[in-house]
Amino acid sequence: MFTFGATEGAQELVKKSDYERLINEFGAKSIDDEIISSFRKPHKFLLMKLFYAHRDLDLYLKERLNGRPVSIVSGRGPSNYMHIGHLVIFEFVKWLQDELDAEVYIPLSDDEKYVFGKVKSLDQAYTYAVDNALDLIALGFKEGKTFFFVSTRLSEIYELSVTLSRYLTFNTVRATFGLEGEGVNSGVVFYAAVQAAHILLPTAKKGLFVLVPIAMDQDPYMRLTRDIAVKAGFKKPAAVYSKYISGLTREPMSASKPETSVFLIDSEEDVRKKIWTAFTGGRPTVEEQRKFGGNPDICVVYEWLKVFIFKDLKTMDEHARKCRSGELLCGECKRMLADGLIKKLAEHKARKKQALKVIDRFFLHEIEIPEEIIKLLE
Amino acid sequence: MFTFGATEGAQELVKKSDYERLINEFGAKSIDDEIISSFRKPHKFLLMKLFYAHRDLDLYLKERLNGRPVSIVSGRGPSNYMHIGHLVIFEFVKWLQDELDAEVYIPLSDDEKYVFGKVKSLDQAYTYAVDNALDLIALGFKEGKTFFFVSTRLSEIYELSVTLSRYLTFNTVRATFGLEGEGVNSGVVFYAAVQAAHILLPTAKKGLFVLVPIAMDQDPYMRLTRDIAVKAGFKKPAAVYSKYISGLTREPMSASKPETSVFLIDSEEDVRKKIWTAFTGGRPTVEEQRKFGGNPDICVVYEWLKVFIFKDLKTMDEHARKCRSGELLCGECKRMLADGLIKKLAEHKARKKQALKVIDRFFLHEIEIPEEIIKLLE
Repeated sequence: MFTFGATEGAQELVKKSDYERLINEFGAKSIDDEIISSFRKPHKFLLMKLFYAHRDLDLYLKERLNGRPVSIVSGRGPSNYMHIGHLVIFEFVKWLQDELDAEVYIPLSDDEKYVFGKVKSLDQAYTYAVDNALDLIALGFKEGKTFFFVSTRLSEIYELSVTLSRYLTFNTVRATFGLEGEGVNSGVVFYAAVQAAHILLPTAKKGLFVLVPIAMDQDPYMRLTRDIAVKAGFKKPAAVYSKYISGLTREPMSASKPETSVFLIDSEEDVRKKIWTAFTGGRPTVEEQRKFGGNPDICVVYEWLKVFIFKDLKTMDEHARKCRSGELLCGECKRMLADGLIKKLAEHKARKKQALKVIDRFFLHEIEIPEEIIKLLE
Repeated sequence: MFTFGATEGAQELVKKSDYERLINEFGAKSIDDEIISSFRKPHKFLLMKLFYAHRDLDLYLKERLNGRPVSIVSGRGPSNYMHIGHLVIFEFVKWLQDELDAEVYIPLSDDEKYVFGKVKSLDQAYTYAVDNALDLIALGFKEGKTFFFVSTRLSEIYELSVTLSRYLTFNTVRATFGLEGEGVNSGVVFYAAVQAAHILLPTAKKGLFVLVPIAMDQDPYMRLTRDIAVKAGFKKPAAVYSKYISGLTREPMSASKPETSVFLIDSEEDVRKKIWTAFTGGRPTVEEQRKFGGNPDICVVYEWLKVFIFKDLKTMDEHARKCRSGELLCGECKRMLADGLIKKLAEHKARKKQALKVIDRFFLHEIEIPEEIIKLLE
């Protein structure tokens, strides 16, 4: 529920109009051309406005421009194997790391998933945490500048959470997280402070300015953490907000609905089948498609091509033009997407195997690799 | 507020009749002759009924009798230098350790004292934690069988607290701890789970049956922890309950009221002054005292002589007889108590200095000795 990134379920509540409300009502700012052009080679996610809003990103970039080191915190709640949608924020984080030479902290919140009842035990969450970390290391994060930790295993986290908890009342937690009644367990109440500790760790430890790339519906927790930071005498963390990517069925992507997304452990056959039944903006017949063209604006296959396959805006626009003109049939797009994803997953799996050899160098504490994770990669 | 032992303030609410209610209304049992006689040489605190009630102590002793190892958990909330009243429970624990060859765990709850606002920072609590640990090691706990830890510094504690937190709702915490409203901070809410983790650590880690020696007014937290243990599938911890010892002024002993107790760092002069003004059961004049005798039943000096100085019941009874008969004058008793305490404190201080050399062998994590603690012992 609180984890940064493409959180299960949360996005069901997000409407397109909410994207604007974050800016118009809640005081976030648009990522404008000035910010975009301050990067050497802006990421396509910025150009296509997938990351579209921010808080204090301008101040953060100024800090970096003035030669001071900065950091990025981007968490993952380990309650499942990851799907391709989960990688989006982390691909962006990896690009930011290269661009800003930033330290990246990746908390794996086993505590969160357990207190919210998303896993049976902390051990179960731990297994997913190691698996998920391998997936993330496979994205190419820099060794020595990227620090993973399982939340219950780094004693600094509990210590900092306790320090912050004094600035966070039960009432505030309840209001922010929309908890129902008081039957909520004590771990859930405290987790709000733990999440703040995840974000503020680089500031508390090294005085670094923190940036949190995050899905836009997670802003209430971000605002809460920024309030706590001020009360506790820390620099307020900056945030950059992403929109959501549609699931294949047009529902939100969800680990509990396998048909909505492509999992990193899916077989070639799984991928083809899922993409084949994906929602498109096509016409009922080939004839109509040739005559009237498709509608890329509502097409999930096109959306996925943009996010996962195409490298630049020119390719995206050209593809949309061809769709609208009737040059492309949905089958061609689906094949293109399936082929691209299968290649991507195969490359990913190879890098994930390599990650197994270096994973311990990326952790702030000792780790053991669960047997089932090793088997999964054989 | 939650710490086991002679907790500041809490005992203000305790009336003599509450001692009986623990048994008659709340289902604790008296420590009867059968239990007392099962010890080789029962401690005077048992014989004088200072420890007077229990839960499952009979089962616990049976477990030990059947040759299975057992453990004792006795915590300390490090928000001050300790006074002599704080040592009572730990002297009893040390005796139990020798009697039962038990492992003893001593959590130092810096988190508790911080979230309840009794210290300014975790660092401040840490300094007291090290000082207090030295005082406790000075009592003669066995190296290799006695394990201290500062709560925020042992990552197993946060992990176990999270596991237990799922069995503990905000409502239960509020009812048990009598929290006012919902303005309570999130650290306080979670601390209930942390305290349960302190108690259940030896069970979770090694499957050991745990005994908690505790002041009787702490029973609500004990009942809560026993409930959580059952829900989480752990063996319910046993408890043994003590009455309170009066402060010198008849108020409860309190670190914030120095005149109520003798601190372990008090000078000889401090001690003599405090004892000289202590409340007694004596008569207004020497003549009346000789004629009518004093009343040891209400005399704090006599109570302290029993707890801190006299070795056996025979000495206690003989002293009371002499007081009642008018043989003793209050001045004599006060001198006897002051001399005894001064000797005790001097011996204690010497052992505390020795403890400085071995303290790291008693901790479950690395520790640093704050400069001011070293200075205090010079």
